[in-house]
Parts: sequence; structure tokens; C-alpha cells
Amino acid sequence: MPSATEQKIIDAAVRLFAAQGYDATSVQEIVAAAEVTKGALYHYFRAKDDLLFEIYRLLITSQSADMDRIIGLGLSSADTVREILVSLVVSTAERVDETAVFVRELHRLGEDRMTEFRAERRRYHETFLAVIEKGQADGSFSSGVPADTVVRIALGVVNQLPIWYRPDGPKPPGLLAEEIADFVLAGLR
Amino acid sequence: MPSATEQKIIDAAVRLFAAQGYDATSVQEIVAAAEVTKGALYHYFRAKDDLLFEIYRLLITSQSADMDRIIGLGLSSADTVREILVSLVVSTAERVDETAVFVRELHRLGEDRMTEFRAERRRYHETFLAVIEKGQADGSFSSGVPADTVVRIALGVVNQLPIWYRPDGPKPPGLLAEEIADFVLAGLR
Repeated sequence: MPSATEQKIIDAAVRLFAAQGYDATSVQEIVAAAEVTKGALYHYFRAKDDLLFEIYRLLITSQSADMDRIIGLGLSSADTVREILVSLVVSTAERVDETAVFVRELHRLGEDRMTEFRAERRRYHETFLAVIEKGQADGSFSSGVPADTVVRIALGVVNQLPIWYRPDGPKPPGLLAEEIADFVLAGLR
Repeated sequence: MPSATEQKIIDAAVRLFAAQGYDATSVQEIVAAAEVTKGALYHYFRAKDDLLFEIYRLLITSQSADMDRIIGLGLSSADTVREILVSLVVSTAERVDETAVFVRELHRLGEDRMTEFRAERRRYHETFLAVIEKGQADGSFSSGVPADTVVRIALGVVNQLPIWYRPDGPKPPGLLAEEIADFVLAGLR
């Protein structure tokens, strides 16, 4: 969990990056918007791209923890998939600004960060894949479509949310999440 | 349809943009790789970002024409959705390099181009949406999940292909396309 100061810096950076772009945003502006000192910012983040990575890392870390928690509940395969998708869609839909900034600036991450980013994503993908495979193996789900393609479809719509979804639009995050879960579970029956 | 010269220029630009990035690629390098004169390039494209846009416009124009042709065949709703998805997934999967370049550099398009891009995408989206809605209205498809969410799911996986799909990987474009169509149709039943 980030400290209150760290969270203030991250929130200010997300707002500024989303509104005016990553390049056009200076560390000085972030410091001013967050109402912290430059020293405080550099205590948590060595550079602007540390901040970019941290924005994303906090999101995926909390989404991975959610998935692990849901799997630990020992629900049926269908309920596990539903809970994972609802939690993932809602948390992503509520944070489309952060995700949009990160996706747009992804190519700026250095090699180490890119490797860490890919590893985090792969872990999430593989844990979800194992849930689908288990349901196919025990007959809870149809095996008509291979589990890896099911995962690509389910995560594809989530990864595209930053392109088109607005949390203040006509469809609230929770409703969209249930619709996506309904469709994926219908496809798995 | 582009002329042979225009196509040579586009192919060279796609290769160079994908290999070394849009910024790092000069018009001179594109001209040399395409084995055309600078005059020929400027006959077709006023600037490098014209070329970027044209790369994408050719792809979506041919995908839109494919969809219109398939709808014109008057197949059942299920066969129409299958043919549209297979054609879309195969044409996108075979051109992941072009699409990846375009998506990465999208923010560079000027306002007019961005408007044209959004209009092309919206038209594709709405035509596909009408196909799903028609199938829901005549009882060919379940109405359990609203058509707009079904379209977001089906197009989401296609739009994510440039991130992870490699045409020379273990799953050929045609097989992936059938799997995606199978899953979407299973969800619609």
C-alpha cells in the first residue's frame, strides 16, 4: 500500500498525464498539484518514468491480489470466473484514466521495467488460464474452445476498456462487469 | 486500391516503422527501401503521417468492404457473424505489424485524421452491432447480454491481437479465427 503522500503524488500525476500528456508534464507541476515538496517526490520516485510504472504496478498488484483471494474462496468454477471478471472489469473501468496513460506511454519503459511489466501480466494471465482449464477438466465448462483463447477474449475486452469506456457514461462499471461475465460464462457452457 | 508504387512505399514504411519506430524512420530511408524516388513518395503522400494514416485506412477499408460483402450474401445470422469474425480475425492477424504501428502512433494523427479514424471505426462497429441486434430480434440469438457489450467483447479480442499474436506462432490465423467465432456464437446461443 502506498503512503498518503505517495498516493497524493500518484493521483496528481495521473490527472496531469491524462489531461496534458506525459511529455508535457513536468515534475514541478506534479509537485505543485500534489501539494508536496520536490524532496518528497524524489523520496518515492527517482524519475518521472518511475511514477508511470508505479501507477500501473499498484493497479495490477491489487488486481492479482483480488484474483488470489477469489480463488481462495473455493467457489464453483463458474462462480470463480464470475467473481474474477466482475472484480477485474470494475477495478479497470473505475481506473480507465490510469490505464490509458500507462498503455499510451508503455514504450517509454526501460528494458527492466518492461520485463517486470510482462512478468506481472503473464502471471495474471496464467492464473486465470488455470481456473478455466480446471473447469474444463472437471466438466464444469465446455472444452469446445481452448482455454487460452477464452482467456484472450475475456481479457481482451478488459484491456480495451481505456479506449472507449467512461465510468460516468450510461453504463455503470458494475453493470458492464455483470454483462461481460454473463457472456463469457454463456460461451463456456 | 493502391497503385503498385504506392503499395511498395507502404510496405517499406510498415517494415521500417515496425523495426525501428516511426520517429527514427526518415522519408529518405522509406524511399531507399521501397526503391522509388522521393518525388514518387511525395506524389502519393504529403508527409510521413499521411503514410501512417494510409497504412491503417487501407486495412479498415478492406475490412469494411468484406463485412458489407458478407452481409450481402444473406446468410443466417449465425453464419453471418461467423464469416464476419473469421474474415476480421484473419485479416488483422495477418497484418499485426501494421496495426501495432498504427495503434502505437495513433496520438500523432492531427484532429482531422483522428475524426476520420473514429468515423471509420464507428461505422464498422455499428454495422456489426446491427447484425447482432437483428439476430437477437428474430430469436436467432439470445438477448441475455446487450448487443453493444457482445460487440465490445468480439472486437476487443481483435483489437488486442497486435499486442500478443504472432502469425508465425503455434496457432495459424485461420484456426484462431474459428476459435473466436465458436466462442462468440456459443455466448450468443
